[in-house]
Amino acid sequence: MQLLEERIKSDGIVKPGDVLKVDNFLNHQIDVELLCEMGREFRRLFDGCQIDKILTIEASGIAVACLAAQYFGVPVVFAKKTRSINIEGEVYATRIESFTHKRVYDVIVSKKYIQPGEHMLIIDDFLANGCAVRGLIDLIRSAGAVVEGVGIAIEKGQMPGGRLLREDGIRVESLAIIESMNDETGEIVFRH
Amino acid sequence: MQLLEERIKSDGIVKPGDVLKVDNFLNHQIDVELLCEMGREFRRLFDGCQIDKILTIEASGIAVACLAAQYFGVPVVFAKKTRSINIEGEVYATRIESFTHKRVYDVIVSKKYIQPGEHMLIIDDFLANGCAVRGLIDLIRSAGAVVEGVGIAIEKGQMPGGRLLREDGIRVESLAIIESMNDETGEIVFRH
Repeated sequence: MQLLEERIKSDGIVKPGDVLKVDNFLNHQIDVELLCEMGREFRRLFDGCQIDKILTIEASGIAVACLAAQYFGVPVVFAKKTRSINIEGEVYATRIESFTHKRVYDVIVSKKYIQPGEHMLIIDDFLANGCAVRGLIDLIRSAGAVVEGVGIAIEKGQMPGGRLLREDGIRVESLAIIESMNDETGEIVFRH
Repeated sequence: MQLLEERIKSDGIVKPGDVLKVDNFLNHQIDVELLCEMGREFRRLFDGCQIDKILTIEASGIAVACLAAQYFGVPVVFAKKTRSINIEGEVYATRIESFTHKRVYDVIVSKKYIQPGEHMLIIDDFLANGCAVRGLIDLIRSAGAVVEGVGIAIEKGQMPGGRLLREDGIRVESLAIIESMNDETGEIVFRH
């Protein structure tokens, strides 16, 4: 998606350790207009698919998922990273290792919000090693629901997450795929 | 806002300890269509105000803020509850005690995303004791920016947060204000 690639080129900051900071439009400050355009593009990419619900994970996935969901006309469910006293009853649980935060999270979703047979679209901001998406797939399959596809804002193509998911037959649509990035020159090359 | 009150009456669950669970449309599963209507209502309530940016706090504030922001045509900034390795440089910091989670959070926002003189609208899902909103006001004032107002989805009117903020001259607009709720009968009474 050209608009997103241009924004990554102009505002993304490459850091050592394959870190791409897009804090000023995606995951701290949010350019809502851009995310609406991204939502329309997800809608176009998954046109004709049965999608009953969108599943994401807190926190920065929520903005991408909610602004996209309005074009699908479906609710969003977000998986939670810690057990809250406000979540009761039975939950599906999985464990996710965050690339960004270098830690392991327990992730839960209430059983009420993924029903057997529902077709779920996973949406998240980043795909790197694929652990978050795999965790969400695990939650969906625990519920007996169907993974209809995965929509990602920025995929780090130099990391194996996207490739391995596609090899497993999961439909992954990423709006921007990074081929390589250089933390000395700041250069970012996209895969097309 | 009648639509929201009706939804709270039909789907909200009252729990002991002044807990209102609205997990199935506001803070676990998100009814995006309802939140869009709420966003339009915030826009109507703050019509004529100068609003340069919306500030919220992760996680469940993000959905309410982003879906509202599209009607204001401004970006959202969300304050973060933990220090991430992906946030660098200087931040404004404050400390917030969560009513729901019964714990204290350090909350930060990058100095880049609140500029002196900017007019900020705070949006959050709940207002109870007002600690989260006071923390966000603290961050805005640390930046030399202006608190234009506070937009809340559900205010617990039986708790002092909203009253004390209004007494301090802060404009607080809540889409639904709970007068009382009864965890034995499940009855919820709204203030009008």
